[in-house]
This record gives sequence, structure tokens and C-alpha cells, in this order.
Amino acid sequence: MFEVELQPFEDEYLDLPEIQYEYLDHTADVQLHAWGGTLKEAFEQCGMAMYAYMTEIEYVEVKHTVDIEAEGHDMLSLLYHFLDELLFLFSAEPFLIARVIKINEFDTENFKIKARCYGEPFEIGKHPQGTEVKAITYSNMQVHENDGKNEVFVIIDI
Amino acid sequence: MFEVELQPFEDEYLDLPEIQYEYLDHTADVQLHAWGGTLKEAFEQCGMAMYAYMTEIEYVEVKHTVDIEAEGHDMLSLLYHFLDELLFLFSAEPFLIARVIKINEFDTENFKIKARCYGEPFEIGKHPQGTEVKAITYSNMQVHENDGKNEVFVIIDI
Repeated sequence: MFEVELQPFEDEYLDLPEIQYEYLDHTADVQLHAWGGTLKEAFEQCGMAMYAYMTEIEYVEVKHTVDIEAEGHDMLSLLYHFLDELLFLFSAEPFLIARVIKINEFDTENFKIKARCYGEPFEIGKHPQGTEVKAITYSNMQVHENDGKNEVFVIIDI
Repeated sequence: MFEVELQPFEDEYLDLPEIQYEYLDHTADVQLHAWGGTLKEAFEQCGMAMYAYMTEIEYVEVKHTVDIEAEGHDMLSLLYHFLDELLFLFSAEPFLIARVIKINEFDTENFKIKARCYGEPFEIGKHPQGTEVKAITYSNMQVHENDGKNEVFVIIDI
């Protein structure tokens, strides 16, 4: 068993070297896991999970709505573009934070979504700042649709 | 140019869906970049960079020394094991934080290092807690030895 043995440091001369290093490229991510009675509901939950990561969601009131549309060529890209549209809502004026997301058209044959987002513009002072979401990723993305178990996994860059 | 159009939300009934999501697997990393007049010095600096990420290094006094050894089968694995030894010093009793690291033997033919670490045990209250370093990685690791430019890049999991 290796043990760390400390030696006292007393009389030896030691100068502190100048600093010749730096820290680069801090990256981080978090995986969203969302589920529901249907896949549509799991998608909605995933979108709400992303918004809830950006602030403390219970501070967000439902005062406005915005309609969005997303398209993909399969379920994964549909989920990606759906979340990307939601992320865009927050990155552009008037910086909407949705408290509730409802998908009104969930076309899994042509991979199209129409959804309504319910919330209000982000307001410093009213809404605590959570973590900035930089991007949606395809990394290890998963969409599972089974009897009674509909869930999605998405890793987002933060 | 796409513009986000807010609609007022007034009279429509809307219930808040229950939460069916969670956040998993937060991961993060940072890249250490260190350099020096020699490759040996760049290695020393890289080790000090890692310790300086764990606390505010100017709070660390040089009171003790610990000697370490590391081996590899090439320069990359030598750097990996060198940093891993340093990380181990902090993970085991008495949780040494080194302010200064001096490599006394830097054998680039047999890929062996003997080094002395100068510092003191980590002490809550005396040393501000920085970021926990979870692991050294080989991801995009680089060791460059050129005339007048010796530098290394290492990504660590935090």
C-alpha cells in the first residue's frame, strides 16, 4: 500500500517559478432526460427541461405565446431542430423563456412539429440567471418509443 | 429575416404540466496549456497549473516536500502518469497541494521522471476551494519540443 510521506521543508532555498501556463477551452455539458405518456409529451418535456436549466422556471409567468415550427429527416434531427428553435427564441429579441410548451402537430411520418410556447421575455432582476445553453448536440442523442415508456436523452453544451 | 413575434396570452386556459424530466451526467473539462525554456520546465509548469486550478495557489505555503516518480512508454504517457501521480497526492492523505514542482530526473529515453513537490496539506479555511480535478485525459494531448518553444496541452476532467 502506497503511502504519501511528507518531508518537512526547512532550510533549502526555493524560488517561486514564474507562471508559464494558462487555462483554455473550458467546455461543459449536461444531459437532459425527459419522458411522458407519449413521445410528443416527452418532446415537450425536453423543451421545458432546457428552459428550466436557463433560469428558475417558477419565476416565469405565462404572459405571451410564440408559435414555432421544426422539421427533420428522422426523429433525432426533428428533436434537434425542435430544441434548436426553442434555443433560438431565447437568443433573439425579445428573449422568450417558455414555462409551458405544447406541441399541436406532431407528424412522425414527415418529421414536422408545430408548437406553441407560453412564457414571457427574460428579465434580469425578475428571473434568476441559470446556466447559458450554448448548443444542442447530437452526441448520444436517444429517442425511445415503447409501450408505456416514451423518453428522450439530449446532451446540451453549456 | 426571421423575427420572433410575441402574442399576448390572456384568456386561454392553461395548466402547468407536471415535471417529467431530470438532468444527468454533468461533465466538464478544461485544457491546461503550459510552456517553458525546456520540455522539463513545461512539464513542471503543467503540474503547477493543475494544482493552481484546485485552489488559489498563492494561499499555499511551502512547508513540506514529497518525492514522486512516474514512468511511461512515450512522452504522452509519461506526461499522463506524471500528472496522475500529482493528482494522487491530492486525493490521498494528507492531501498535498504543491506550490512548486521540480523535476530532478527527466529521462526522455526511458520515459522516467523523478520530481519533488513543495507545498503543504490542503486545509479548508486556509485554502479556498477551487475546482475538483476528476481525471487526467489523453484527449488531444500534445507535447511539443522545438527550438525555443516547448509546450504541452492536457485536457483534464473537472
